[in-house]
Formats: sequence, structure tokens, C-alpha cells
Amino acid sequence: MFKHEKHLLHEVKVDRPNPTYAAMLQEQLGGANGELKAALQYLAQSFRIKDKEIKDLFLDIAAEELGHMEMVATMINMLNGHDVEGQVVMSGTIEPQVLSGLTPMLTNASGAPFTGNYISATGDLAADILSNVAAEQGAKVVYEYLYRQINDKGVRETIDFLLNREEAHNALFREALNKIQGKGSGKDYGVDEDARLYFDLSAPGQYFKDPQPTSPGFQNPRQH
Amino acid sequence: MFKHEKHLLHEVKVDRPNPTYAAMLQEQLGGANGELKAALQYLAQSFRIKDKEIKDLFLDIAAEELGHMEMVATMINMLNGHDVEGQVVMSGTIEPQVLSGLTPMLTNASGAPFTGNYISATGDLAADILSNVAAEQGAKVVYEYLYRQINDKGVRETIDFLLNREEAHNALFREALNKIQGKGSGKDYGVDEDARLYFDLSAPGQYFKDPQPTSPGFQNPRQH
Amino acid sequence: MFKHEKHLLHEVKVDRPNPTYAAMLQEQLGGANGELKAALQYLAQSFRIKDKEIKDLFLDIAAEELGHMEMVATMINMLNGHDVEGQVVMSGTIEPQVLSGLTPMLTNASGAPFTGNYISATGDLAADILSNVAAEQGAKVVYEYLYRQINDKGVRETIDFLLNREEAHNALFREALNKIQGKGSGKDYGVDEDARLYFDLSAPGQYFKDPQPTSPGFQNPRQH
Amino acid sequence: MFKHEKHLLHEVKVDRPNPTYAAMLQEQLGGANGELKAALQYLAQSFRIKDKEIKDLFLDIAAEELGHMEMVATMINMLNGHDVEGQVVMSGTIEPQVLSGLTPMLTNASGAPFTGNYISATGDLAADILSNVAAEQGAKVVYEYLYRQINDKGVRETIDFLLNREEAHNALFREALNKIQGKGSGKDYGVDEDARLYFDLSAPGQYFKDPQPTSPGFQNPRQH
Amino acid sequence: MFKHEKHLLHEVKVDRPNPTYAAMLQEQLGGANGELKAALQYLAQSFRIKDKEIKDLFLDIAAEELGHMEMVATMINMLNGHDVEGQVVMSGTIEPQVLSGLTPMLTNASGAPFTGNYISATGDLAADILSNVAAEQGAKVVYEYLYRQINDKGVRETIDFLLNREEAHNALFREALNKIQGKGSGKDYGVDEDARLYFDLSAPGQYFKDPQPTSPGFQNPRQH
Amino acid sequence: MFKHEKHLLHEVKVDRPNPTYAAMLQEQLGGANGELKAALQYLAQSFRIKDKEIKDLFLDIAAEELGHMEMVATMINMLNGHDVEGQVVMSGTIEPQVLSGLTPMLTNASGAPFTGNYISATGDLAADILSNVAAEQGAKVVYEYLYRQINDKGVRETIDFLLNREEAHNALFREALNKIQGKGSGKDYGVDEDARLYFDLSAPGQYFKDPQPTSPGFQNPRQH
Repeated sequence: MFKHEKHLLHEVKVDRPNPTYAAMLQEQLGGANGELKAALQYLAQSFRIKDKEIKDLFLDIAAEELGHMEMVATMINMLNGHDVEGQVVMSGTIEPQVLSGLTPMLTNASGAPFTGNYISATGDLAADILSNVAAEQGAKVVYEYLYRQINDKGVRETIDFLLNREEAHNALFREALNKIQGKGSGKDYGVDEDARLYFDLSAPGQYFKDPQPTSPGFQNPRQH
Repeated sequence: MFKHEKHLLHEVKVDRPNPTYAAMLQEQLGGANGELKAALQYLAQSFRIKDKEIKDLFLDIAAEELGHMEMVATMINMLNGHDVEGQVVMSGTIEPQVLSGLTPMLTNASGAPFTGNYISATGDLAADILSNVAAEQGAKVVYEYLYRQINDKGVRETIDFLLNREEAHNALFREALNKIQGKGSGKDYGVDEDARLYFDLSAPGQYFKDPQPTSPGFQNPRQH
Repeated sequence: MFKHEKHLLHEVKVDRPNPTYAAMLQEQLGGANGELKAALQYLAQSFRIKDKEIKDLFLDIAAEELGHMEMVATMINMLNGHDVEGQVVMSGTIEPQVLSGLTPMLTNASGAPFTGNYISATGDLAADILSNVAAEQGAKVVYEYLYRQINDKGVRETIDFLLNREEAHNALFREALNKIQGKGSGKDYGVDEDARLYFDLSAPGQYFKDPQPTSPGFQNPRQH
Repeated sequence: MFKHEKHLLHEVKVDRPNPTYAAMLQEQLGGANGELKAALQYLAQSFRIKDKEIKDLFLDIAAEELGHMEMVATMINMLNGHDVEGQVVMSGTIEPQVLSGLTPMLTNASGAPFTGNYISATGDLAADILSNVAAEQGAKVVYEYLYRQINDKGVRETIDFLLNREEAHNALFREALNKIQGKGSGKDYGVDEDARLYFDLSAPGQYFKDPQPTSPGFQNPRQH
Repeated sequence: MFKHEKHLLHEVKVDRPNPTYAAMLQEQLGGANGELKAALQYLAQSFRIKDKEIKDLFLDIAAEELGHMEMVATMINMLNGHDVEGQVVMSGTIEPQVLSGLTPMLTNASGAPFTGNYISATGDLAADILSNVAAEQGAKVVYEYLYRQINDKGVRETIDFLLNREEAHNALFREALNKIQGKGSGKDYGVDEDARLYFDLSAPGQYFKDPQPTSPGFQNPRQH
Repeated sequence: MFKHEKHLLHEVKVDRPNPTYAAMLQEQLGGANGELKAALQYLAQSFRIKDKEIKDLFLDIAAEELGHMEMVATMINMLNGHDVEGQVVMSGTIEPQVLSGLTPMLTNASGAPFTGNYISATGDLAADILSNVAAEQGAKVVYEYLYRQINDKGVRETIDFLLNREEAHNALFREALNKIQGKGSGKDYGVDEDARLYFDLSAPGQYFKDPQPTSPGFQNPRQH
């Protein structure tokens, strides 16, 4: 079960309203690499996990991502200002001006609604963890793009916090994969000859050699 | 921020596996009147609410609905059994057999993915609360349909609990509307003459008189 | 069956072209609280209604909403001007400039296509009517947002007419609910103990008391 | 504006309930080649048509397709029987059993919701009419598939009527194209050399000669 | 099977960056009348075609459309410039600035993701070919709108090439229909009386006579 | 540009028709981990890649996945048999029986249409490659589920080939990541203190230590 606390996971600061940037930030609320996607993906995957340690990890991070979602929504709120007024948005969707009365929407930066299609859950731990590492890396990339496009010091500090948390999750998921290496879909990698062929179908050029696959595992994701 | 506790909000019981019924129950996990929809709708609406009491009510219920979602997912898990085997599903979508390895999916009973289109948030309290009352009534209806189509005693007890919780939420939202009656979009109802006309456009028959609109408010939602 | 008359339900006036506002107005043509949604929702619900009076009400209003849809499309047409020219749209989607040759599209203000996901039909009169009351209130809210963002006198008069019609429909649907109170999903409200609990899951604060639910019904929606 | 008459455009007959076939028939209610798609496509296209004769044709047919939609919905109703009971559907989606209480849904045979993506409106008469001819031919094909899969005499008679109406519309749209041939996007066909080349990109084989394009026009769509 | 060659099907030129126009051009990459839609529609239709000549035609054109898609993507790349910077997009979606790092996206000009709903494949040659003729005409129309809205000489030359190719495909598909006229869904046209009625449902006006349908066929699509 | 050869990349065998299994196999044609998704994801990512060796790898694999798509479609064709007949599908969607005349559809096993939402392209090589490794692992998992649910020897051999090819691609993508380690979004990992915290938000239990993140890299994906 879930409990909610009204204080945010981490303080959110915004120096001044900026409705155009609010539209851009929607991407991390309801978009393909956004916080809601991360929260629901890890939660959905956890529904059938039996490994106690990994289930706990997934749920720790899922709960944190719900907290991130609230932080992003709070930033959008502050950036949107007080009144519906379509003309203040220089570029990007203006749907919050006509539909939601500036309430942060569960959409991406184009106004496309959040969709379960963003979520991957396969019932296989190796596949799910690799998917989560990719999700965390993608979320970091989007925060980097957003960081570069604003000078607002408060916004930058908040994005910086969120970006660093994605790095933490990324490393933790990598550790989780290494714990279960060679299990589930990681079994029997590269046994068949068909797995050791390279089909050179785009001309010109072939720069990689025939693969000799091993089970996926990460280099030590932890500094020492 | 959110915290998670691994025990369920309320015990879930299932007497025996029933993959066809698991497919039907998906409707309340990822469907239009399902638990995820309710949780996210109330959470999204709360992002911009200033009324402290109503914001608290929305978040109390949003957190509970997340807990309901886990209960529904747990039931689906138990009903699905242990092995992917498409033939055991007599009717309904078999996608969990090929994509998610029986992990409960964030889809409806037809396998259509959860979508933000299910969620209504207008930035106006009266409109949002009316939307929530409708959502709770709709959720009750779906649980009633599901109840009738199974004899499994454990499933029926769990559905009965969830159905009653929707009644509770329904009444609470109605009280909330009455607290703010005549505010926001409830203002100035029926002032213009155009609001007091009836256009009889489907023939034959007109059974309602010209309206004389008042602001929406509920009869006492509380027994005394 | 349906018949069409080429004259509009009510005159539409626009003082001058305004492609940015045309993009905003799309919300009420193909959006979540728009006229097409209302028309199709009431029509779809009516397919299985046996109560003769309520079926007539639903179809009277469905037919009127189709007429509203034509009015909104006509306004968008007039606001769009005569030539495709993406640069004239200051904010909002420019898809009509590249895809539809300025023909009003069945999309919302973000260009997201109309979807059946907006439509709720449960086969239960109480749930459907509550959904319709919410839809009418939501439509009123969107028209209020749109009204505030334009000074064009012709547009304002047309929006005012449409907004008042939603008030009329709202009151009529509330009367309909009161006629069937305690039937269908309105039965047996608050009987179980589980329906009389409050779960205080968002901290701090609880401002509502334990509910004691009654069947949903509206205060007299008619002035006297 | 639209007016509704409660009698159907044409009598609908069903010999006996058949919930599996009801699920299949959904395709023509809310699917890609279904009646709602046809009605809304012709209506949306008409919004900006200036040619008086063609605008009238589009609206005559749009209104008729709304009437077909009601006929299909009535058949689904009769085929679905009286009680929600998932087990009676042998194959196909069972969502009406859990969500809509057997109300015909605005979805296709897979339960995917109706979407504006099915609708094509380009603001160019030649392109729109060609699109409509294709839509009518596609609708005929689906009715042929449905006809073959049922022995119910009442259903077959109703499908036969609908199928023949699509043929009528098809021929009328072809006449409309011939009336405007060489206008709009029909202008200047085949003038450039690039329009007169054949790129043979799938091996083996090339069975068509280099094109020498003329403006699209149909052979006489009318018997004499 | 498919092979790829890294050189483009035809040279692409762009005089200078223009991120707003890049957003508009997305329509032909991932939109309803775009190159990806055309490629996948013809490919999907070909999966079950038995007529050797027509299967070859469909696959020749499908492969060419994939090459067009690369050309459009290359133009978008060049128009987007080098740095993510939302402010440079005057109107239209800014999602590539926050999600894809300016990589051309498989979306339309509103940022709506490509969808299989754009694709029509009926298993009937007559219906599929008519659908393809409509698709080619629609693609031509969109290129005409795009051509008018830019002065960049390089872009105009590239669009001109693509537009002419659509004319070539259009004529070839029309020849294909004529080859199979009267087969499949083209059989038995206009036999029933119901196919020879006109329902005059939009008042005022009826400008077309009762149809007397023949099987669809095109006037000679080839100049002589 | 693309060229097509009509022979398949690899022989496809099916011992006997099995329409229910055809419905299941749709998942790998148009589903979230299917062949079309893989092909389009790698192609879309390649649009802006400057690294010559990695661009070639992406395009070699994209072209191969298009070939896989044809193989899957051919299997579905063979499994579907010759006549539309909804009753032969025991479970799963029956839409090909009513809409596509048994033509393999660009949908998943639930009949949900292919969507660009499945595709991830971030403009950052590290994020894209991690996403591709996850996609290949997910595809392998789905093939494993499908393999277990059929005894048809021909189908099993074909699935085995495809499954092994995903292993090969997986290993190649891992090598590609290692080549660019520490670049793009791989830079500056774990520098901030916020990246080195663990938030224990799901009770009871914490089984992982505070992370000390390094840049993502794979253990040698190649046997020696």
C-alpha cells in the first residue's frame, strides 16, 4: 500500500514564471522518459517478482519516482504563472491554457497523453532490469537537454538533483542485473551458431566482427 | 512524496486460478474506470488545488486507490496461475501469455494500454469533483458486473471490499462539492435566457420541461 | 436515423481572423470536453436505454451537440483565414497548415486526434448520467477559459450561447438522475461497514469525517 | 444542424443472440472502415467545401451513415442478449461484459477505441473524394467478410442492405470526382519528368511500364 | 528481405536551417499521409497478395517510400540546425528539443506518434489499391501545402521531386486497379435495388441522381 | 535507400494451420518488442548518428529486422489458413477475420495497432544503445514464451532462428556501448553527492548499499 506525505521529497525552486519552459518540462511529467513512466514501470514489474531483494529495490525506486513526479509538477505550476493566457506561450502546446486551467497535465511536451505503451514489463528479470537501465539513462538525457535551455537558477538546481538521482538508480539497477546474471533470459547465450553470425545488410561498410555472445552483465557499476 | 509498505491495504483472497477471469479483471487495473485511473486523476487534480481540506481529501483517496491497484494486481496474479499457456484463456485478450509472462499489465480487458485520455483535470473544483463522483459510480458498476460473473468466494469478498470503498469515496466527493457550491464554474448558473431553453431535436417525444438551472449540488450524501 | 439541415442551430459570428485562437478553439471540436465527445457519448449511452423519457432526453441533447460541433467548426473556419501559412500561428499546433488545408480537424488543441477513450458508457443509468453532468460542467469550464482569452465580440457571443446551453443540459441531466434515484448502481448505498470508513493516507491532516453514504441525488436543479 | 428520428433508417432483424458475432460486428460500429468513421469523415470534410453540389452530397451521405451506425448498434444489442456473462463469448474481446454492460461500444472488433486517426480530411476535393471511394470499398469488403461468417437470416438481410448502400455511395463519390477532374490536386499531372519514371527496387521482376500520369478520373460509374 | 544503401535515393538540399519548418515537415515523416505510412501500408498489403505482377508493384513502391522517408528525415536534420534550443521554433511542436535531441521523430507535425491506425490493409486488392491511390493523392496535397510555405530553393527542389514521385505511383496504382477490374470486391456491383437509391437527408438540395453503380475502374491513367 | 529481394532472409516453415497461434504471433509483428519496432527504432536513431561505425551497425541490424518482420508475417499467413472464419480462433483477437481478410496486421496480439510510442530515440548514443540492448533482450523473452506454447516443429525452428539473431544483435550493441563509454550521457557519472544516496522508501527492507555510480559499460560481451 502507499502513503503520501504532503512535503516534497526535495525542495523545488523557480526564480520566475516561464510558461514556454513549463510546456517543455511537461516531457518529464507525462512523457516517454518521464517520472510517471519510471514509477509505473518499476511498480508494474514488481507485481510478479519473487526475488525479495530485487523487489524491494524496484519498489524503493518506484516510490521515489512518484515523489519526483510531484516535484516536476510543482515546477510546472510555478513556471505557468497565475492566469490562462495562450499568448504567453511562445512555442509548444497551449492545451493547459484551454483544458486544464494550467494544472500540470499527464502529457508530454507535445500534449500527447501519457500512455501505457511507454511501459515495459516482461516477467523476466534480466529483460526488465536492462529496460530500467535504459529508462534511467534516457531520463538523464532529457534532463540534460532541459538544463541547457534555461538560465533560471532555481530550476537548474532542481533539475540537477533529479538528474543525479537517475544516475543513482541507474547504478543500482546495474548491480541488480549482475546479481542475477545468467538466469532467466540470460541463460544459454550464444550457444547456437545462428547467434554468432553478422549479416552485413547496409552498404558500404562492416566495422564489427561476428559476435560470440555472452550473457549480459555490467562492468562494476560502483566506484572503489 | 510517497512511501510504500509491502503489506496490502486489505487482504486478497482467490480460491483457484482462472485465467479467463484474470483477463476480465484487467479492466479494473488499467481500464477507463479502473484503480490506476482513479489514483492518477485525483493526484493530477490535486497538483493545483489551494483549498487545504479538499486537497487533503483528494490525496487521501488517491493514495488509497494506489493501494487498490496493488490489490487488483495481486488478484490477477493469483488467477493467472504459473505458466504461460494461451489455450487456458477461453475468451478475452491473451497478451499476458506472450508479452508480459503473466505479469498483470497496465491495460484494460481488451489489452488496450492505459491512457492519460481517461483522466480529467480542469483546474476547476466543481468540474473536477463532479468528474470524480462519476468515476466512483462507474468503478462501482464495473465491480458489480465482475462480481456477477464469478463464484470464487475469495474473489467475491475482495471485490465486495473494493466496491464498498468506491461508495465511501463517492459520498465524500459529494460532500466536498457541497462545501464549495456556487464557486468557480458553479457561479452564475441559469442567469442567461439561453440556459432556460429546451431544444426538442429527437422525434417523437419531449418529456422534460424547459430547464431553470441552479448551481450543481448534491442532496445530503450522509445518512443521519 | 438522423437528418441534417444546412442552416446552423444558432448564428456564428467572428469579427476577424485569428489562427492562433482557431488552434485553441479546436479543443471544443475534438477534445476531451468538446462537442463531438458530448454528442457521441449521449448517443452511445442511448443505444441500450429502455426508459423512454430518459432515452428521449439523451437523444435530444446528442442531436443538439452535433449542431454545436458544426458551430465550433464554422468559427474555426472563419478564424483560420484563407491561406495555409504556418507562421501566422503564434503558439499551438500548426497541423491544419500542413495536413488539412485549414479544414477544422477532429483533434484537440494539441493536435491529438479525437478518441473513443473520451467516451463513457456503462450500461447503468446512474453512472452514465453522473458522467454526463461532469461532462457538461467540464465543457462549461473550457468555454470560460476560451472566453477570457479573446476580445473578438462575435466569438464571445457565440461562446456565450454555447456555454449557456451546457448549463441547460447540466440541469436536465440532474433532473434525470433524481427521477431514477436508488435504482441500478444507486441501490444499497452505504449498507456495508467498509463503505463507512475513512482511510487517512496523506499526512498531515484529515478534514472529513467517516462517510455514511446515501444514494447519489442532486439538490433541486430547477429554480422556483 | 442535425435532427434525430427514433425509427431506424431501415428495419433491423436478428434471428437469435450470438455474443461472439456481436463482438465481430463491433468492427463496423467503431472500426477503421466502420459507419462512425464514414459519417465523421464526410462531415469533417464538408466543413470547408465551397462547391454547393458536392457539399450537399457529402452531407446526404454523412447523415445516412449516422443512420447506419444506429442500425449496426441495434444489431449488436440484439446479438448480445440480456446478461453480462463473459463465458458466452467464444472468441474476440469481452470488454462489453465488464465495462459497458453490453452497450455497443465505440470500438472495433479488438476493443480498440474509435480514433480520429481513421479520418482523412485534406481540404482538397480530389484527395478527399478518392479517400471516400476507398472508404466505401473497404466498408463493402468488411461486410462481405461478416456476411460469410453467419447463417442468421435476419443479420444477413441487414448486412446485405448496408453493403448495397456502400455501393451506391461509392458510385456517387466517383461521379463527384469526375465533375471536378483536373482541379485542385488533380492539376498538372505528369508534367515533370520525375513523374514518368519507374524505380524497380524489389527483385526479381518489373511488370509495369514507366508511367505517363494523367489526372485521376473514374470510368463512367453509372450503368446505361 | 531488405538491403540498405547509405546513399540517398535522390540528393537532398537545404539552403539554411529553419527549425519551424522542420517541425512542419515532420508531417511527411510520421504523419497520416507521410512516407512511413505509405511504405508500411504497401508492404503490409503485399504480405498476402498472390498476383505476382501486383505484388511486385507494391513492393517496388514500398521500397521507394522507405527511401523517401530517409530523404525527409535528412531534410529535417538539416533544417533543425545543431543545438537543442526550444526558443528557435516559432510555432509547432518543440518535442525534438527536449526528447530526441533533434533526431527526426516518427511523429506528425503535432508531435502525435506514428500509428498503425493510418494503415489500411483489407486482403482485397480492389479496396487496397483504391486506398493507395487515395494515399498518393493525399501525400501530393501535403507536399503542395509544404511547398507554398517556404522559399528555400533546396527544400523546394526536394519536395518537387517527392511530389512528382507520388504522381507516378498514383498512376501505376490506377493501372493496377484496371487490371483486376470486376474481381474481388469489384464483383456484382449495382445488382441489388438498394444500391440504386439516393437518400436525400441533408436539406436543402439534391444535386445527384439515383446511382446505377458499376464496378470501380479508372479512366486511362496513362497519356498517349 | 532500401532495396527489397523477394526471397526471405531465412526459410520459414509451418507444419499446419493454427489461427489461435497466428493471433499470438502477431505480438512479434506489430507489438512492443516486435520486429517492426526494432527495425524502425534503429533506423530512426541512425538518422542523426555521426559515428560511422556505429551508424553502420545500426543500419545493418535495422535492415535485418525488416527481413525478420517478413518472416513473422509469412508464418502468420501460413498459420491463418485460407478462409475468414472467426470460430476457429479459440482465444485472442479475431480482427483479421473481419477487417484484414487474414492479412497479417501491424498490431500486437491484442489487436492494438503498432505505435511510434514503442520507439525510443534520444539523440544520445549511450542512451540509445542501452535501449537497444533492452529491446533485444525483450524480443528474446517474447520468442521464448511463444516457443513454449507450440509443438509445431516448423514454427519452433523458425522462432529458434529469430531468437538467436536477437542474441547476436544484443552482443553487438553491447560492444558498441563499450566503444563509446564515458561519452555523451556517460560523462561525469556519480560526481554529485545526490547520485550517491539510497532512499529507502518501501518498507520493510533495504538490501542494496548506497550507490557510487560509474559510467555504464558492459562486461565483455564476447566469448574468448
